[in-house]
Amino acid sequence: MAEPSIAAGEVWLVGAGPGDPDLLTRKAERLLRAADIVFYDALVGPGVLDLIPNHVERVSVGKRSGRHSKDQRSINDLIVRAALAGRKVVRLKGGDPSIFGRSAEEMAALAAHGISAHVCPGITAASAASASLGLSLTLRGLARKLVFVTAHARDGDRLDLDWSALADPGATLAIYMGKASAAMLSRRLIAAGLPSSTPVVAVENASLPGERHVGTRLDLLEIAVRSLGEGPVVLLVGEAMGAASAPTSGFVYPQERLSSLPPRAEYIILPHEKGPHHSPCPA
Amino acid sequence: MAEPSIAAGEVWLVGAGPGDPDLLTRKAERLLRAADIVFYDALVGPGVLDLIPNHVERVSVGKRSGRHSKDQRSINDLIVRAALAGRKVVRLKGGDPSIFGRSAEEMAALAAHGISAHVCPGITAASAASASLGLSLTLRGLARKLVFVTAHARDGDRLDLDWSALADPGATLAIYMGKASAAMLSRRLIAAGLPSSTPVVAVENASLPGERHVGTRLDLLEIAVRSLGEGPVVLLVGEAMGAASAPTSGFVYPQERLSSLPPRAEYIILPHEKGPHHSPCPA
Repeated sequence: MAEPSIAAGEVWLVGAGPGDPDLLTRKAERLLRAADIVFYDALVGPGVLDLIPNHVERVSVGKRSGRHSKDQRSINDLIVRAALAGRKVVRLKGGDPSIFGRSAEEMAALAAHGISAHVCPGITAASAASASLGLSLTLRGLARKLVFVTAHARDGDRLDLDWSALADPGATLAIYMGKASAAMLSRRLIAAGLPSSTPVVAVENASLPGERHVGTRLDLLEIAVRSLGEGPVVLLVGEAMGAASAPTSGFVYPQERLSSLPPRAEYIILPHEKGPHHSPCPA
Repeated sequence: MAEPSIAAGEVWLVGAGPGDPDLLTRKAERLLRAADIVFYDALVGPGVLDLIPNHVERVSVGKRSGRHSKDQRSINDLIVRAALAGRKVVRLKGGDPSIFGRSAEEMAALAAHGISAHVCPGITAASAASASLGLSLTLRGLARKLVFVTAHARDGDRLDLDWSALADPGATLAIYMGKASAAMLSRRLIAAGLPSSTPVVAVENASLPGERHVGTRLDLLEIAVRSLGEGPVVLLVGEAMGAASAPTSGFVYPQERLSSLPPRAEYIILPHEKGPHHSPCPA
């Protein structure tokens, strides 16, 4: 393939993937080399930033849940100004720009100024998390539908989701930024009809060296996520998450044991660090 | 990052992405170099296969909708046998192995033989398609949910989906392998409450040089997809698909014009080839 090039005054919105620089696409890597300025989010991992050549200017526009260092309009203005000044601009966004990446707002701002803009897709957190777990997000006969939602509402807004549509036992539900709302999510989904025993895996820092998994059931979710840290968390909810092949993924999901426990017992599956040296889960 | 290695007798399920070899992850590219045998699908593009070094054995297990050259059990057997023989095995799957890739069936077969197996995620077709279009799959306030389904049922089975849950005007619906079922999909979604004027973009061969887009509305979908060819098609349905920024993406979505047409008019938006030399859409 030809090296993707960036014309002067052109902008590429580039998916940085979940954090592991190895999960960047080849195209994204080449675009970073072709840029002369890169605007990046707080969710873009340091390993990814290391792929930016030294001569390329880097500008942090570090948005992060609860810590908006720059609002969206200021970010749009920065990117527009750089493009109008004739720079070769990459806007590097965590995950996939098209999935909860607010790329439409930046594309619209660029279009309003007649600036040529393109999108390079990225691996989204749910894909990376399920790959780490050795699980499939869809499963024939059991999870024929895959649903992505974010639990992060606009500042001050109530989270307004159609819970009955989400509570589909034949689907896998990937909830982005769901840790803070875990108690509410669990309560609402159960009230809408999802069995309390539905398997859930919470994955923090998917694909990064500090990745952690907690396997639990829907009614214990609030307790289980307390053991996680401050990294971004994706919640994977549904029967497909109970189908872990433990020996192949290094992840133990003791579903049989959980099913036999009283539903509201104070029981936490201890998370373990990813990697070859982790100790096995308590069995 | 360390070069990912494959131990003898180990299997990696690797996402090949939508077809453009530039949309492979860096990790997938390295795993192809570390393998000594690669089993690949019909949906894996020739450009991706060119990344496999010459000394690596390639085995086509070309499954494709309607043309199952090998059934799933035979594929499992081939992979298991190669791993048990001590080969370094890559199983290369179109898109993302975790999204309609039937990876769970292969992981389970490997686990049953005590074979160590891992997954490397890939860019799924809907991400690649929306990136090509310069559109976001999610949109604040308009598409807060993203739903993936496949319109390809098991052989002989009726497609059994919860249409009322799918007919959510606040969601984007990505339908894989939906071309053959376009008439039924359109009828069912409208009957379940989705407005007939809902924007739809059908994308054939997302990310490949022969990529084609047809922008239409839900009630005209059956007519619109007739102009597409035999390549894999992803249908993107929802209000977010009406927000195309035409000047930046090279894609013209004449929503205003479509809305003013009689709903059942014999009207097709002509698809155009991707690339810098395509002629503009008839306006």
